[in-house]
Amino acid sequence: MALKTLQGYTGMASNNTLALADLRQSLVSQGIDAFLVPSTDPHHAEWVTPAARRLERLTGFKGSAGTALVLQDRLLLLTDGRYTTVAAAEIPARPLEIINVRDQTLEQTLAVSLPTGTRLGYDPWLHTVADIGSLGLAAAAAGISLVAVTENPIDRLLPPPSLPAAAAYPHPLQYTGRSSADKCREVAEHLGAIAADRLFLSAPESICWLLNIRGEDHADTPLVYAFAQVHLDASVDLYLDPRKSSPGLVAALGHTVRLHAYADIKEALAEPGNGRTLALDPASTSEAVASIAIAAAWKITTTRDPCVLPKGIKTAVEIAGAKACHRREGLLLCRFWQWLEAHAHQHPLTESVIRAEIDRLRATDPLFRSPSFETIPASGPNAALPHYHVSPETDRELAPGEFLLLDSGGQYRDGTTDITRTFALGEPTLEMKERYTLVLKSFIRAAAARFPRLTRGIQIDTIARELFWRAGVDFDHSLGHGVGSFLGVHEGPNRLRPNLTGLEPLQAGMITSIEPAFYALGRFGVRIENLAVIVELPAAVGDEMPLLGFEQLTLCPIDVRPALHERLTAREKAWLNAYHHRVWTELSVELSGPALAWLAERTVALH
Amino acid sequence: MALKTLQGYTGMASNNTLALADLRQSLVSQGIDAFLVPSTDPHHAEWVTPAARRLERLTGFKGSAGTALVLQDRLLLLTDGRYTTVAAAEIPARPLEIINVRDQTLEQTLAVSLPTGTRLGYDPWLHTVADIGSLGLAAAAAGISLVAVTENPIDRLLPPPSLPAAAAYPHPLQYTGRSSADKCREVAEHLGAIAADRLFLSAPESICWLLNIRGEDHADTPLVYAFAQVHLDASVDLYLDPRKSSPGLVAALGHTVRLHAYADIKEALAEPGNGRTLALDPASTSEAVASIAIAAAWKITTTRDPCVLPKGIKTAVEIAGAKACHRREGLLLCRFWQWLEAHAHQHPLTESVIRAEIDRLRATDPLFRSPSFETIPASGPNAALPHYHVSPETDRELAPGEFLLLDSGGQYRDGTTDITRTFALGEPTLEMKERYTLVLKSFIRAAAARFPRLTRGIQIDTIARELFWRAGVDFDHSLGHGVGSFLGVHEGPNRLRPNLTGLEPLQAGMITSIEPAFYALGRFGVRIENLAVIVELPAAVGDEMPLLGFEQLTLCPIDVRPALHERLTAREKAWLNAYHHRVWTELSVELSGPALAWLAERTVALH
Repeated sequence: MALKTLQGYTGMASNNTLALADLRQSLVSQGIDAFLVPSTDPHHAEWVTPAARRLERLTGFKGSAGTALVLQDRLLLLTDGRYTTVAAAEIPARPLEIINVRDQTLEQTLAVSLPTGTRLGYDPWLHTVADIGSLGLAAAAAGISLVAVTENPIDRLLPPPSLPAAAAYPHPLQYTGRSSADKCREVAEHLGAIAADRLFLSAPESICWLLNIRGEDHADTPLVYAFAQVHLDASVDLYLDPRKSSPGLVAALGHTVRLHAYADIKEALAEPGNGRTLALDPASTSEAVASIAIAAAWKITTTRDPCVLPKGIKTAVEIAGAKACHRREGLLLCRFWQWLEAHAHQHPLTESVIRAEIDRLRATDPLFRSPSFETIPASGPNAALPHYHVSPETDRELAPGEFLLLDSGGQYRDGTTDITRTFALGEPTLEMKERYTLVLKSFIRAAAARFPRLTRGIQIDTIARELFWRAGVDFDHSLGHGVGSFLGVHEGPNRLRPNLTGLEPLQAGMITSIEPAFYALGRFGVRIENLAVIVELPAAVGDEMPLLGFEQLTLCPIDVRPALHERLTAREKAWLNAYHHRVWTELSVELSGPALAWLAERTVALH
Repeated sequence: MALKTLQGYTGMASNNTLALADLRQSLVSQGIDAFLVPSTDPHHAEWVTPAARRLERLTGFKGSAGTALVLQDRLLLLTDGRYTTVAAAEIPARPLEIINVRDQTLEQTLAVSLPTGTRLGYDPWLHTVADIGSLGLAAAAAGISLVAVTENPIDRLLPPPSLPAAAAYPHPLQYTGRSSADKCREVAEHLGAIAADRLFLSAPESICWLLNIRGEDHADTPLVYAFAQVHLDASVDLYLDPRKSSPGLVAALGHTVRLHAYADIKEALAEPGNGRTLALDPASTSEAVASIAIAAAWKITTTRDPCVLPKGIKTAVEIAGAKACHRREGLLLCRFWQWLEAHAHQHPLTESVIRAEIDRLRATDPLFRSPSFETIPASGPNAALPHYHVSPETDRELAPGEFLLLDSGGQYRDGTTDITRTFALGEPTLEMKERYTLVLKSFIRAAAARFPRLTRGIQIDTIARELFWRAGVDFDHSLGHGVGSFLGVHEGPNRLRPNLTGLEPLQAGMITSIEPAFYALGRFGVRIENLAVIVELPAAVGDEMPLLGFEQLTLCPIDVRPALHERLTAREKAWLNAYHHRVWTELSVELSGPALAWLAERTVALH
């Protein structure tokens, strides 16, 4: 059966798994024909608690975004281009049908997969107001009834682990540059402007940013899972597991933040509204929140989470922190790459050894907290999987003629990093060089872009991607994502994406990754990634308007050996030379020995 | 006073002008503090009838888009970048304050210019449902009351000329490739899908497209001003001045189209709805329509005008027609440019002489109806005005060292054209050559673009515009606009624009202009423009996905003499050579004498 097969591939212990037949039986007993199992939790962040990994427990799928549709005779998994390939590789069980949402959305899947009259169950704490609005329209058009369950049948069959209880702690002004009181005042002003009495927040990044707190609820991201309500007087009710609290936290939060137990949020939402207005972001708020409040006579007004934009525009202190941690990491990376290049030719290195070494080096930084995501040390064909995870089954030695794609990052108290470099062991084929050159040219085109205010992410994405289109190829992910400040390594609102999610106007102070890539499935992969902060460029001769551009935060040489130098334009070489000059200037003073020699060699100017 | 000054500059006869003081007095008597005067009529097309030119009658402003805000002590004119320069040049009267809507929207202007408590009057037939929705929000936030007037005070003071009465005529299947019955069926199916009983249409392009009719209601565009309602059974009520009708028209429309008098639309909208649903496009429907229907117990549902997308995707017959008229026009253009180049050096030519000659040549085509817009023969500093109109006051001789920017087009029964070329008389300066080269490179980048399905207009715009940003400059209009088939020379939904109005996914069969430009105010201007149809490209070696691209419709050499050839890439030269080879091949067979010699010289390959 499907689940047995899945178990074999995912290596899950049997007490963490759920018999699909039991779930189906449970649904039948509730009169439900089909059930949605998303990879979300009530906080709708990219990072979910282990407790909330219902999708993984049901299917073995470990990707960060996906939704299973459980029917009585089929099991569908909808995910995106980052994961369809991984999912197909990790979960080859035929009974699990994998759908790329780019080819067929969940709404379309309902229409083609469910007969008219189907009762489709869902857990209203796991779907946002916006999701249910969109699903509701599609369901109505297809004659399907949406049924909110009061208890998730998966949890009833297999009680979830309890939520993490690790302590939350203040993230002080020396790293944020802006007091929580000041941020709360800005949010309260927004409430006044939209004529709302209260704001509901469940996004952990927003709550951490607003209250200048961080925590240990997630391995890669210093999040605190909590709920909050912000009032017109800028005071805050914070719903937090009491075990996370401490006198130091209470003192830092101050008297305008009232602490409550995490589970009390349901009761608080049910407080009679008497026609008052609750503001919520439909894209990040559970449908259950709106339902409870509406039942308690609250009026609902929708708004974009008012923390999102100010969180995205970093303070001068946050930018200084980002520069500092990138500089320290640059020194570590020189030592790492020198070590890797020195050892790669002497004796074979496995992906897991490479990962262990870079993780070990990062951990020597005094402000290091954790990797910002699971290090991706993808060699040979594994590099064609954008979100590859190394495991004992997939681990392999780096072989001559192959690319090693190494994507890694750190959470430091003063900032979050994310860098990818692609290294060639020995001589790559002409095809590999051509693709490496394409990725490099595309990277530079974006990194060197100059653009007026109000330019949107989709436009920067296009500037880089057009070179791929010329060659008749593409890569199935965004050119870049926003990055938090000791917070999510992926964050909005700024996104360099080729679709309608890339419409946020870019502003000075936003941090973004720039990471074009090329994937030859089953053969090789190339990605080059820096983080950069958007800055107002100094006026150049002839400029008739103010322009924005990218100041590179990442300080690490970009290997030019796999590139076809004759295909680089003078502008591209000039950009590379200026970048490498800066990397040399900033890092060489603190390096010595083989690492310094390595840096000198890798930052030689091109002619 | 303001008006007197305006009169002097616009040369309007006194019986066409309106005393601003009289209007202000009239407003006061109605208890209205301020009044909006848009450049629209109840059909909300780009092309308005002379009868509707209230804005021009009030201010002398002749641009196609603008709104005056009449206060008791100020007169504001809001318009866009195409016209602010023109307006400033044409209407230098200080009392008229000109605002670029890119710097300050109408909504923002209300907030900063009108005190709380202001009663702001508007004519509900001249503002769309969407406009009033947006204005209403802004007005509410600023404490301003919107007051719909029942009769436009401008019309009461100065009765407008009657609507044109020119005959409408069938536009037969040989030009459209698709029957009106088939189009009406598609629209009726859309009504069924959105659960509406009826569709209201007032957009003349939509009505002309849907019913395969054309007319003479506008000088440049073969429009018929009418209203229509489409029913679920695919039948149509058409509200048309009876003088426009004829037995031939009635026969062509068939028995499923019922004719009514134009003015009967108000009565028809007031027919009791009994809870039925009227569909309308809020972006192109007067607020008065929704108000009348709601008062008559209709439910309103909003939809994008369902004619817009199928009208934008041309039929094979329409594409063949476009190619045919562009080929005939290409022959005319060779004769024209040969004539111009031969005469420009012999004796000075004025802009008006140049315009007369190209207009005369186009009129020799047997399928010619009219220019598709007023020919723009802009020399020297006049070329820096994107929508320059030549007049006796502005007419000037083309002088050595200057650019002539000539933008013109024709309405032919089989298609609509629009072409711009920039010609240098004698040796341009290095700066002029640099800018010409920039425009040429940008034009080729867009024209040679290859892009996947679902690519949006904003992305193509960016591909071309990025070269401008690199140079620190920009042009304040879109890269391209959709073009109708013997219909509007500007039409949606496809637009190559750098903002949220450029989000329509591009599809094969859409026709667009490609027209990057550079304007040096007061000195010179460069624009190069072709029309092209979007096509599925044949797969090239290495293509991993299907790609779309542009097949050029315009067949006319692009002058390479003012360009700095050393700045053109191999790819750019290859595109130019292929284009010129095609122009030569298609046109040379039907030319002889000096025009053939001219074509041979202008299509020589670059090395």
